[in-house]
Amino acid sequence: MLRLATPGYLRFSQTNQLTATFGGGEANVAVSLASFGIPVDFITRLPENDIAHSCVMDLRKYGVGVDQIVYGGERIGIYFLETGAVNRGSKVVYDRIHSAISEIEPGMIDWDKVFEGANWFHWTGITPAISQGAADICLEAIQKANEKGITVSCDLNYRKNLWNYGKNADAVMPALIDGTDIILGNEEDAEKVLGIKAEDVDVTNGQIDALAYESVSKQIMSRFPRCKKVITTLRGSVNANHNSWSGVLWDGQILLEAPNYQITNIVDRVGGGDSFMGGLIYGLLTYNGNDQKALYFAVAASCLKHTIYGDYNQVTVEEVEKLMAGDASGRVDR
Amino acid sequence: MLRLATPGYLRFSQTNQLTATFGGGEANVAVSLASFGIPVDFITRLPENDIAHSCVMDLRKYGVGVDQIVYGGERIGIYFLETGAVNRGSKVVYDRIHSAISEIEPGMIDWDKVFEGANWFHWTGITPAISQGAADICLEAIQKANEKGITVSCDLNYRKNLWNYGKNADAVMPALIDGTDIILGNEEDAEKVLGIKAEDVDVTNGQIDALAYESVSKQIMSRFPRCKKVITTLRGSVNANHNSWSGVLWDGQILLEAPNYQITNIVDRVGGGDSFMGGLIYGLLTYNGNDQKALYFAVAASCLKHTIYGDYNQVTVEEVEKLMAGDASGRVDR
Amino acid sequence: MLRLATPGYLRFSQTNQLTATFGGGEANVAVSLASFGIPVDFITRLPENDIAHSCVMDLRKYGVGVDQIVYGGERIGIYFLETGAVNRGSKVVYDRIHSAISEIEPGMIDWDKVFEGANWFHWTGITPAISQGAADICLEAIQKANEKGITVSCDLNYRKNLWNYGKNADAVMPALIDGTDIILGNEEDAEKVLGIKAEDVDVTNGQIDALAYESVSKQIMSRFPRCKKVITTLRGSVNANHNSWSGVLWDGQILLEAPNYQITNIVDRVGGGDSFMGGLIYGLLTYNGNDQKALYFAVAASCLKHTIYGDYNQVTVEEVEKLMAGDASGRVDR
Amino acid sequence: MLRLATPGYLRFSQTNQLTATFGGGEANVAVSLASFGIPVDFITRLPENDIAHSCVMDLRKYGVGVDQIVYGGERIGIYFLETGAVNRGSKVVYDRIHSAISEIEPGMIDWDKVFEGANWFHWTGITPAISQGAADICLEAIQKANEKGITVSCDLNYRKNLWNYGKNADAVMPALIDGTDIILGNEEDAEKVLGIKAEDVDVTNGQIDALAYESVSKQIMSRFPRCKKVITTLRGSVNANHNSWSGVLWDGQILLEAPNYQITNIVDRVGGGDSFMGGLIYGLLTYNGNDQKALYFAVAASCLKHTIYGDYNQVTVEEVEKLMAGDASGRVDR
Amino acid sequence: MLRLATPGYLRFSQTNQLTATFGGGEANVAVSLASFGIPVDFITRLPENDIAHSCVMDLRKYGVGVDQIVYGGERIGIYFLETGAVNRGSKVVYDRIHSAISEIEPGMIDWDKVFEGANWFHWTGITPAISQGAADICLEAIQKANEKGITVSCDLNYRKNLWNYGKNADAVMPALIDGTDIILGNEEDAEKVLGIKAEDVDVTNGQIDALAYESVSKQIMSRFPRCKKVITTLRGSVNANHNSWSGVLWDGQILLEAPNYQITNIVDRVGGGDSFMGGLIYGLLTYNGNDQKALYFAVAASCLKHTIYGDYNQVTVEEVEKLMAGDASGRVDR
Amino acid sequence: MLRLATPGYLRFSQTNQLTATFGGGEANVAVSLASFGIPVDFITRLPENDIAHSCVMDLRKYGVGVDQIVYGGERIGIYFLETGAVNRGSKVVYDRIHSAISEIEPGMIDWDKVFEGANWFHWTGITPAISQGAADICLEAIQKANEKGITVSCDLNYRKNLWNYGKNADAVMPALIDGTDIILGNEEDAEKVLGIKAEDVDVTNGQIDALAYESVSKQIMSRFPRCKKVITTLRGSVNANHNSWSGVLWDGQILLEAPNYQITNIVDRVGGGDSFMGGLIYGLLTYNGNDQKALYFAVAASCLKHTIYGDYNQVTVEEVEKLMAGDASGRVDR
Repeated sequence: MLRLATPGYLRFSQTNQLTATFGGGEANVAVSLASFGIPVDFITRLPENDIAHSCVMDLRKYGVGVDQIVYGGERIGIYFLETGAVNRGSKVVYDRIHSAISEIEPGMIDWDKVFEGANWFHWTGITPAISQGAADICLEAIQKANEKGITVSCDLNYRKNLWNYGKNADAVMPALIDGTDIILGNEEDAEKVLGIKAEDVDVTNGQIDALAYESVSKQIMSRFPRCKKVITTLRGSVNANHNSWSGVLWDGQILLEAPNYQITNIVDRVGGGDSFMGGLIYGLLTYNGNDQKALYFAVAASCLKHTIYGDYNQVTVEEVEKLMAGDASGRVDR
Repeated sequence: MLRLATPGYLRFSQTNQLTATFGGGEANVAVSLASFGIPVDFITRLPENDIAHSCVMDLRKYGVGVDQIVYGGERIGIYFLETGAVNRGSKVVYDRIHSAISEIEPGMIDWDKVFEGANWFHWTGITPAISQGAADICLEAIQKANEKGITVSCDLNYRKNLWNYGKNADAVMPALIDGTDIILGNEEDAEKVLGIKAEDVDVTNGQIDALAYESVSKQIMSRFPRCKKVITTLRGSVNANHNSWSGVLWDGQILLEAPNYQITNIVDRVGGGDSFMGGLIYGLLTYNGNDQKALYFAVAASCLKHTIYGDYNQVTVEEVEKLMAGDASGRVDR
Repeated sequence: MLRLATPGYLRFSQTNQLTATFGGGEANVAVSLASFGIPVDFITRLPENDIAHSCVMDLRKYGVGVDQIVYGGERIGIYFLETGAVNRGSKVVYDRIHSAISEIEPGMIDWDKVFEGANWFHWTGITPAISQGAADICLEAIQKANEKGITVSCDLNYRKNLWNYGKNADAVMPALIDGTDIILGNEEDAEKVLGIKAEDVDVTNGQIDALAYESVSKQIMSRFPRCKKVITTLRGSVNANHNSWSGVLWDGQILLEAPNYQITNIVDRVGGGDSFMGGLIYGLLTYNGNDQKALYFAVAASCLKHTIYGDYNQVTVEEVEKLMAGDASGRVDR
Repeated sequence: MLRLATPGYLRFSQTNQLTATFGGGEANVAVSLASFGIPVDFITRLPENDIAHSCVMDLRKYGVGVDQIVYGGERIGIYFLETGAVNRGSKVVYDRIHSAISEIEPGMIDWDKVFEGANWFHWTGITPAISQGAADICLEAIQKANEKGITVSCDLNYRKNLWNYGKNADAVMPALIDGTDIILGNEEDAEKVLGIKAEDVDVTNGQIDALAYESVSKQIMSRFPRCKKVITTLRGSVNANHNSWSGVLWDGQILLEAPNYQITNIVDRVGGGDSFMGGLIYGLLTYNGNDQKALYFAVAASCLKHTIYGDYNQVTVEEVEKLMAGDASGRVDR
Repeated sequence: MLRLATPGYLRFSQTNQLTATFGGGEANVAVSLASFGIPVDFITRLPENDIAHSCVMDLRKYGVGVDQIVYGGERIGIYFLETGAVNRGSKVVYDRIHSAISEIEPGMIDWDKVFEGANWFHWTGITPAISQGAADICLEAIQKANEKGITVSCDLNYRKNLWNYGKNADAVMPALIDGTDIILGNEEDAEKVLGIKAEDVDVTNGQIDALAYESVSKQIMSRFPRCKKVITTLRGSVNANHNSWSGVLWDGQILLEAPNYQITNIVDRVGGGDSFMGGLIYGLLTYNGNDQKALYFAVAASCLKHTIYGDYNQVTVEEVEKLMAGDASGRVDR
Repeated sequence: MLRLATPGYLRFSQTNQLTATFGGGEANVAVSLASFGIPVDFITRLPENDIAHSCVMDLRKYGVGVDQIVYGGERIGIYFLETGAVNRGSKVVYDRIHSAISEIEPGMIDWDKVFEGANWFHWTGITPAISQGAADICLEAIQKANEKGITVSCDLNYRKNLWNYGKNADAVMPALIDGTDIILGNEEDAEKVLGIKAEDVDVTNGQIDALAYESVSKQIMSRFPRCKKVITTLRGSVNANHNSWSGVLWDGQILLEAPNYQITNIVDRVGGGDSFMGGLIYGLLTYNGNDQKALYFAVAASCLKHTIYGDYNQVTVEEVEKLMAGDASGRVDR
């Protein structure tokens, strides 16, 4: 997806200079993993034009495999971004209608070929939200992954403005979640997608009670027995420049917690959740079952994402581990 | 329409900075006229979002009336522009599918209100090319204008990549041209739209024989009896930086010619034809039937357009008349 | 007035790139009102050159009426702005001497025509500060407005560097304030302009006692019996990036207070007071005598102004009301 | 003088980014000389503010002595520049009224101190054009230079928009030229300033007859007997991007000519004449009476100026001599 | 190699904004081939730091294989570029001393692994010019390629400022050329490297006699019997903005010629020769022995390079073939 | 030294735009002093190329004397800077190997000429760290200064990545410090350079106990008897955007302390220590032995440096004294 952002804190009507980068939930996770040295392929459908070609070149730059992308359709999705400050929130204008991915149909992707040698498949709640075809192909992929014993993770990622093709999230998502092993969401997703509610959490005042998520996690796990871990990202929005950030992981037994970071001068918060997922997958793949360490890595990686411009998190394992180890001083490295 | 252009001569894959301006055939004519001091309204359909709102603010800045614009639909059309140099031509990637204007339907615009006090209506061949609804509403407008005795002008403006909704130009355009008084086209339009061919013209070598257009003009006029003037823009493409530029006007009796300008260091050639039309309407409205002067004004105005960045021609009557008077020296005015 | 600002936090000697926008007390109020949907005209005098013409085009873009502007004189006023950070304050270098507006004379503006259909006239203490002619025409306007029963508001806006034509504020302002219904000032204006002092207020330490302004308001109202409301903006300057912001309104009976916002990452504080005035006029015109709500609107609108680059406040009624309703979280709107 | 230019070929209304550099006739000559290694001081009057201070820092950067500048007054002169292309000329909007230099008075500069160790004084026709005081001080300087036996040169530099203080050039300039040894002008200056006409020269068509200037030079020399050399710059304006450029020097005996350069892709033509003067002074000082070589140097130096952005010519002696030697190929130096 | 270029035509002292891209003879050829769809790897030695890592990411973006690059050493070579205009040539300041590649030693690259599956090896005269180690490893590679029957091509690419380690080109290059099948050079290389002179060619006046190269080619071929084709690029430098461009190919029997392009508005001429080589290799690999077509492709590809910013040629086979087919009009593709 | 920084908070791989400024420990001190009106010369060795020439022009702009700089060698040192945010620290990539200054040899500078009329010599621990020659010449200068009775100051400035020529700091620095009168360091320098440890100081958590430095200062003074004052800068790194900042001065008798500033929105922290030194030298030279005032000036000056982009501190004495006087409010100065 092409992201067109105004520079600095300018409003749409104040500038004729837009900064073009690429992003989107799954692509963001892919770039995170590639930056951490994990071999990864991004699967999508793009039109055959120079804008989409630039997107592919950009992914290749970051080390993401692009050979499984299929081509066709008429346009690449776009979103316009105006970055807010203090009490004025950022604004996103979506222009993704009729994108190539939204007009995908089952059978267009050869999942056997895609999954050759793969051991993990990640999807997000954005894909089934954009069209019936996208929901169908997502289900197709999950079922094939299940057949092959590939771990499946998802980010619930509820976007109220996307579910426009006649079905609601609660009608579509459960079948997909049924085949999913690792589920990530923020404090609102479970309620919006599944009607499972986190009590006593006021997301606008920066004060969040992590423990309230234990009951939500348990409810999810009992409804979706394949699910082995439920992870919740915890964002406290003090204002547009200052968020607190943490996360919890429920493994069915205990609720693992992580430090709560104060991100006082946010550079770019878009893609924060995706960078959490990228860090989590890295941690789960790398730390040999040490879920606590994986969670810490995910929280630290996504904390750093808030200091990186664009959707993509571009930090190294060394940088994340330095923050995990407690050095949050931001001193000059020279 | 939103235009997103790479800076300088950079290719799409070379930059993440895009310059956002607005444009489109009819809007370009409107801005030309407003810059010349002619009261003018731009009629279109736009979605209700911040990008479209910025477009409206921009038109207002240039003095174009925006009160007749109707709102609805999902997106504003976009085109991406990469500016060529020497032997490498500019590239346009259209992304206008499902734009608000393409999904317009007859009845959405109150033409009686729009035409209150109006004495001229201009349309271009781009509008009927984008959808059946747009073609229908264009016909609706022309018929209403004819009823009210409003002069109707058109720019044939053939774009081969636009006629995608199942009909060809030759099936749709004649009914619209039937109600048109002033017809403008370039050396290819008549052939592509109406099958009327200009003989012995090689558009790529910079050498153009203006006289060959007399026969084309006569054929048009005999097929469309309402038509009173046929104007042809004459562009010789030496290379992407250097074009020659002129035009001829056939009034049914004689072929009026104009100077042939050598534009050796083009700043922006997009909107060249539209600025010709803007200049021509100004001249026809202002010079009391002196068609020769109107043609000179149109050619000089659009010659200057090639020195102005963006789709819009932003020159004054004084500047055009200075060039008409023979001062092409480009000396500093201080 | 043309504003020429260095980018980011660069000093004047560090850059050769200046960002040119337009602004000035009364223009800022006009743009605020236009953004809120209130029909408004800006009255000034500008020279006939391309810089002034760009200023007019810019105002038109924001929806401000420009048909009452008169032309003449030799230059448009300029101010150079260098934005400070932390303990280094912003610097303004004024270059407005001999501006067209400073050389205005009574009789140059046809106030009968200007006030046709008007119900509100706003002036600021900057205008009478720049020249005798400007002071005279300001008085002329106020008297005409009084005759016609038009509400008159003013922002005292004391600028010590402007009163250079031989008279002090206290010699000129009282006659103007005599005809004014609504008076706005900050914590210093009343003292500097009228010698009315707010006790126990230290404007540099971020701690402000709102109650101290009640006595000031009472003194103003008793000296200027026409005055119906006195409004004081309350700025606490923690540092150049962090201000607190609020305001109080005295209606002759009670002192209405508003929330005190912590603006921790200021984007641009110039025009803060003007955006307060714009919000206040909107509120007084719209909320049917609910002064409390008008004050809240004014404070919230001007709080948001601190997040908008340039002199002009470019926010919508919806955005202000969202903040008034308590959502200061700055969350992404998507 | 502060120069504020739009980027690229943008019109004033198209951009809010201005490029700020410094310039002005005499400053430009000073920077040329400093770049060629000649010790030089620039004498002017500037206000005490940060903009003027930046101007001084900039001159210092280029190696120009700034210790003789006097301070006072209210503003630094400004000019706005919009760069033209092809048939659209550049536009200059002057905003120099009431500049510090225009309000200078005789006695403000200590010419004895300024001229200590000096052997050359250069003035231009711009200075006496801006005010009576500036004309007076110019005369004061010339007389003092004459007393001390310092060579005096001038560039007639007629600007029709400047002579606004009640006197015309022909009433003021002769007294100043009386004390001048070396006189430079373009094809129009002699006529506009002194009524001495160059016959048969059409400055707009790019064809110039160098010989016609012999008679003009003779007339000047007979009217001003102190004058030892008359130099004429020859610009042919093909269009805004393409000028021809040369010059001739009359030493009272013969007319020395120089090559005629075709400058096909002008980067910046402002300051062209000043860079000619800078080159000429360098040549006359350095080449031991070889006026032919001095003329060649002046023409080549100013030819190169057209490839340098800004008012200042920033080329080295080596670069000029390379072009003088015939290498106009523009090959990469690596 | 990192290239740091001033924007537009600014001199080094005029700007503090540098545009950073990557380039260098062999990398440029690699990007050309990748853009044409030919699988290609770039072999070099880079230090382990973020600047070098950005270089690798950039190559990956363009589709060049980077897995064979070896790491070590202290710095990446840099060159500073100031782009000239008209009679002022571009300036290159090399800062490549002690680059990682210059400190390479034989044995650091595993040529057996590198050449696995390869059928072509290209080297340039720049590599042996920078150090003895680089010359040694170049010879090592050529000998290994010869053993394996891999075609070897070279671009003589003489740079007078590089041969600083104590040996001259004529002492080092012959041994390398001995193992080379395809030799490319410009009109000066053969003389500077091998003392073989092209008579009657004046490279600065834009007039070049292609036939003079036949004798040079024959001399090369008789001295280096392995050589099968000698190709000469023909550049005529009218000025810094306008070059003519062509090339000839001698296959031992006949001299194949190509069209001579007038490149009147050069965007970037650095890398012109490299883009010729890239086009030639593509043509020789693709057109099944049709050397005439390969030459045409090489000339057209490198003609287009002059319109592309940066060292890398970023054009497609379709674009080159369109120009080969005679369409040099630069018309808009929409 | 050339500094090449990415804009905003972009990572090296995210941008191709670098901002080029100049800096380096001693140059930074020189610019500080020149800005405060103290005559100062910067002594270094630079290559003869355009990049070094731009560096010299830049120093001249800021008023630093450059006539004592010697020329030779092959390159100017470079450092690449990526500015961090929140928990991500800034990154510096040094590329200063084989710089002209690192290849300096004793005898290359005529210290008698340099020290003519001088009363202060300042050196930093960076110079002896880069090469044996640089260490030798530094010692040469100190000894000559001692002979002449010139006050010598140093900033210990330990950089672990620089000491690469085979000697450690503790082997080289003591001989240099022996001749030094005023010693400045931060909380780590004394330990790293001299093995003198400050107890109980945790530099990463923003809490610093100033008193702990008294013992360090005493140890330094007893080991280096010439030393008259030991000054320690106190930086608390809350995060990359927020540091606390202060300093203490030990004069052998008492520990003078200064206010502790909270710098909550850092613009640029590079050069912070150098600006402290510049302020301190100014204070010691100007305040007639009032060390307390000198310390306050140093702390306030360097506090302001954190709001100035680039290595150089560009503030005036008036601005520093305003902050010293307690006005940290950052209010607009207009």
